[in-house]
Amino acid sequence: MKKFRNIALIGRKDVVGVPETLAAVCDFLTQHGVNFVVDDETSHFFNSRKSEVVSREDLPRCSDLIIVVGGDGSILNIAPFAAKHNLPVFGINRGQLGFLTDIHPDAIYKIAAILDGHYQEEQRFLLNLKVQDENKRLVSSDTALNDVVISAQQSSKLVEFVLNIDKEYVCDYRADGLIVSTPTGSTAYALSAGGPILHPNLDAITLLPMFSHNLSSRPLVIGGQSKVSVVISKDNRTNLCVHCDGRQSVDVPLGSVVEITQEKFKLLLIHPEEYNYFATLRSKLHWEQ
Amino acid sequence: MKKFRNIALIGRKDVVGVPETLAAVCDFLTQHGVNFVVDDETSHFFNSRKSEVVSREDLPRCSDLIIVVGGDGSILNIAPFAAKHNLPVFGINRGQLGFLTDIHPDAIYKIAAILDGHYQEEQRFLLNLKVQDENKRLVSSDTALNDVVISAQQSSKLVEFVLNIDKEYVCDYRADGLIVSTPTGSTAYALSAGGPILHPNLDAITLLPMFSHNLSSRPLVIGGQSKVSVVISKDNRTNLCVHCDGRQSVDVPLGSVVEITQEKFKLLLIHPEEYNYFATLRSKLHWEQ
Amino acid sequence: MKKFRNIALIGRKDVVGVPETLAAVCDFLTQHGVNFVVDDETSHFFNSRKSEVVSREDLPRCSDLIIVVGGDGSILNIAPFAAKHNLPVFGINRGQLGFLTDIHPDAIYKIAAILDGHYQEEQRFLLNLKVQDENKRLVSSDTALNDVVISAQQSSKLVEFVLNIDKEYVCDYRADGLIVSTPTGSTAYALSAGGPILHPNLDAITLLPMFSHNLSSRPLVIGGQSKVSVVISKDNRTNLCVHCDGRQSVDVPLGSVVEITQEKFKLLLIHPEEYNYFATLRSKLHWEQ
Amino acid sequence: MKKFRNIALIGRKDVVGVPETLAAVCDFLTQHGVNFVVDDETSHFFNSRKSEVVSREDLPRCSDLIIVVGGDGSILNIAPFAAKHNLPVFGINRGQLGFLTDIHPDAIYKIAAILDGHYQEEQRFLLNLKVQDENKRLVSSDTALNDVVISAQQSSKLVEFVLNIDKEYVCDYRADGLIVSTPTGSTAYALSAGGPILHPNLDAITLLPMFSHNLSSRPLVIGGQSKVSVVISKDNRTNLCVHCDGRQSVDVPLGSVVEITQEKFKLLLIHPEEYNYFATLRSKLHWEQ
Repeated sequence: MKKFRNIALIGRKDVVGVPETLAAVCDFLTQHGVNFVVDDETSHFFNSRKSEVVSREDLPRCSDLIIVVGGDGSILNIAPFAAKHNLPVFGINRGQLGFLTDIHPDAIYKIAAILDGHYQEEQRFLLNLKVQDENKRLVSSDTALNDVVISAQQSSKLVEFVLNIDKEYVCDYRADGLIVSTPTGSTAYALSAGGPILHPNLDAITLLPMFSHNLSSRPLVIGGQSKVSVVISKDNRTNLCVHCDGRQSVDVPLGSVVEITQEKFKLLLIHPEEYNYFATLRSKLHWEQ
Repeated sequence: MKKFRNIALIGRKDVVGVPETLAAVCDFLTQHGVNFVVDDETSHFFNSRKSEVVSREDLPRCSDLIIVVGGDGSILNIAPFAAKHNLPVFGINRGQLGFLTDIHPDAIYKIAAILDGHYQEEQRFLLNLKVQDENKRLVSSDTALNDVVISAQQSSKLVEFVLNIDKEYVCDYRADGLIVSTPTGSTAYALSAGGPILHPNLDAITLLPMFSHNLSSRPLVIGGQSKVSVVISKDNRTNLCVHCDGRQSVDVPLGSVVEITQEKFKLLLIHPEEYNYFATLRSKLHWEQ
Repeated sequence: MKKFRNIALIGRKDVVGVPETLAAVCDFLTQHGVNFVVDDETSHFFNSRKSEVVSREDLPRCSDLIIVVGGDGSILNIAPFAAKHNLPVFGINRGQLGFLTDIHPDAIYKIAAILDGHYQEEQRFLLNLKVQDENKRLVSSDTALNDVVISAQQSSKLVEFVLNIDKEYVCDYRADGLIVSTPTGSTAYALSAGGPILHPNLDAITLLPMFSHNLSSRPLVIGGQSKVSVVISKDNRTNLCVHCDGRQSVDVPLGSVVEITQEKFKLLLIHPEEYNYFATLRSKLHWEQ
Repeated sequence: MKKFRNIALIGRKDVVGVPETLAAVCDFLTQHGVNFVVDDETSHFFNSRKSEVVSREDLPRCSDLIIVVGGDGSILNIAPFAAKHNLPVFGINRGQLGFLTDIHPDAIYKIAAILDGHYQEEQRFLLNLKVQDENKRLVSSDTALNDVVISAQQSSKLVEFVLNIDKEYVCDYRADGLIVSTPTGSTAYALSAGGPILHPNLDAITLLPMFSHNLSSRPLVIGGQSKVSVVISKDNRTNLCVHCDGRQSVDVPLGSVVEITQEKFKLLLIHPEEYNYFATLRSKLHWEQ
């Protein structure tokens, strides 16, 4: 008897190799007598195939596991939705190993073991972003698995902001921006920006000023339950924006407060039994040379 | 009625200004009718004063609070002993603000509030170090509040070692050494070496290769309950050593395993009520310029 | 007899304290019987004063020294013009010490010695920027005293480009951008971005990838006579831009080539006799703590 | 007619693979009718072969090119001698590509072109080290192709020293030490320590504090003709040492002055015609992933 009986299959259309791998997964599931549905976007790959298409909103009702075909970006996209609906996610990469997509397209057969309940599961927390303008009106909100980035809208512009943690004043920054990263995000943008690697099981958040004017600024790692609050100085001469996981940015009015806290729901990430975090690190970061 | 009634007073003799501050604290305690004892080393300052001298081993029996006069180094020295015997520690710096010694010599009057029970208390964890030779014989052990540093005995020598975390292989390093740091130590040697600042309430350990040959090596932050195990390659052409908190190093035979875990007992650090961690950071790291 | 007899006085109107200092310099020059002119922009400060206003183009004809009142940004603005017309520049800062503006407003009397020929002079080279589209048409050009920055138009977007030096291929970058900096710029934006400090007398250029995906990317310092050529990949999914010294950016079409070489003309910077580069470094970078 | 007619062949005995490659080079030279001599150390490999053994001192008289078989360390060892006697050096690596040893053991045939005069030649400057005690007595001197490192004798010990450049005071350092590196050394120890890469044709020196207490310390690149002078504070509580290119260190008495200047003679490095510096960088630093 299978652990997972109803699969939601998701792929992004603009990624090379995704259609072929989706088709292969589709065949595999069919051969193994496993039900699956696809969402609207993914259905474009399935013209000639018989597959039930449901809206994304209906996925939780129709499935108990999401299989994502693509790169880490595809997992980032579905993560808030999957976490909110408590749907576990498993990723098949499109050829290049990712930090979040474990299985190579040539190893689709490994899905069988996962369906049978032989896998590792891991919880990854997400960040909740809220932007309030100076009148305390909520102007935007979003969710991030990797990171929230606050910066000028244009690149290479100095911005000024005040960082508070749990209502305590930390310091005034003059910098290109601030990266607020989860452990999951610590191997993504934050790593390029000089941040430390945080083990995924840490309940911690990294705060990383980008190109700070103060040369003694350093990455700051705080507890995952902390409330980060960034006050955008009205003295800024440039417009600021914020974005989650590299998605489309939203404007942040001067005088706003950007609040970042941990989301209550977590992403349930499924790995093959042989998955090893440090092996992924070694491979992706070329530590074996 | 006082919260603390029996004080152990400790100072290091080779630090400028310590005798004067010790005398002032001594007068203050006497005026406030508080009992105090001094340990052997500190008694050298008290020739002309009436004060009970006890051996360090007797401090726990005779006192319920240790007041240290000196710098952060003085706290580092007494920390393992104080933690083991569950004796809270409070530090008066010798003029220059420290991360661990909060009160300026001019503000000795603040001791009164602390004795009355008006203070903040904070637990800081320590690291346990064990070195086993290739026959699994224990060759040395020690305790660190800040950091354990493994390196060649001579400076600027390349050493080779293997890092394992919780029995999982992480990677082979070719580097000048490895710094294993607590959150407390993250603002000490590890900070000079490029490590992140870890908030003191984090249950986390930083692993920081020193001058790694692999340019994609990065600081790694792991859970505080993890067991760090460093295997010293027999291929090393130079002798290695290890030390805790910058104290006298001990030799590490080739083929040894250096194990680092969290100590069970914690240091109870006493701060004045107005103490603020971020204010200390701003001041010590010159973030306010 | 004076070394400099005709002064061009320049100030930026939006900087606090500039009008007062301009007025003081104006009085000083009048008292010392030195001719001076002001340019159009600066003339706004001089409503009630008798001073000759000339267009910027006429400054070289009317003056043999430019005195700039403001911050380093004011020097950056006038630098290309001054260098092209071989007009030496001397800076009076508006209160906060700069790297390029040496004299404090309270020390205007020091101008006397400079006018008499008692000063240090120093040549600083500039960078020439040319952007050619894929049809080799010149789409923009500019001059920088500090740096040329190539990046996405929006902040925190990954861009791809190829770096060539003197027609030799160096590498493909996937990064937030590239900073190309002079020694003068090495203490400005490039320093925040992790670059080394280059002594001003070095004939060298720093190439500094911003948040490179490749973790073994490092700042690269090359000869000042080298020709840097950056090819903007057509595969970029985002629009790129380039700017000099933090000024208004210009778009860089995909497929363009951005060429950066040393300008033939140099900026002649005038310092008081007691000027010392390392003293400025110590003061600005807080090395004396 | 050959450009080089008399070869000095040098290899280090403790490096795996060196004897086999030496034998192959030896055969190659014999077949091509080229004279060669070996020095004392290298002669150990040649028991069964007919080859003239000369003392190292006699190499300049007997040869017009040194061929080194080994790694970069072997070139570092012979460099001061070769540079002093104006003998060009060519390196065959022992399997792993080096920055200084260009030819793979499988490509020994490439020596033919070099002997015929088809090669690139490049000058690399060296550093001269002089240590004078507080009575201005010379206590030691040496020469470095890569770097001079000043530090405590024991690793991870804080030392204090004063840096002067061209008799101007730069700053007081409290750090683990100082690396003074040539462009050649910029891809060696200095790179692991966070220094920039300096193109080999730059006449520049990098000064790199190791684990500086002052968090705003940065690598400093100065002109190659500058005179670096490091005054070792008498306040140090630990003994210092200095070494060149990672060789055996020599003690530096407290109160000494360590002077570092460019050597007058340069190393003439021979590369195959197809040699490309940036290709070596890409390969060694894994920039192509």
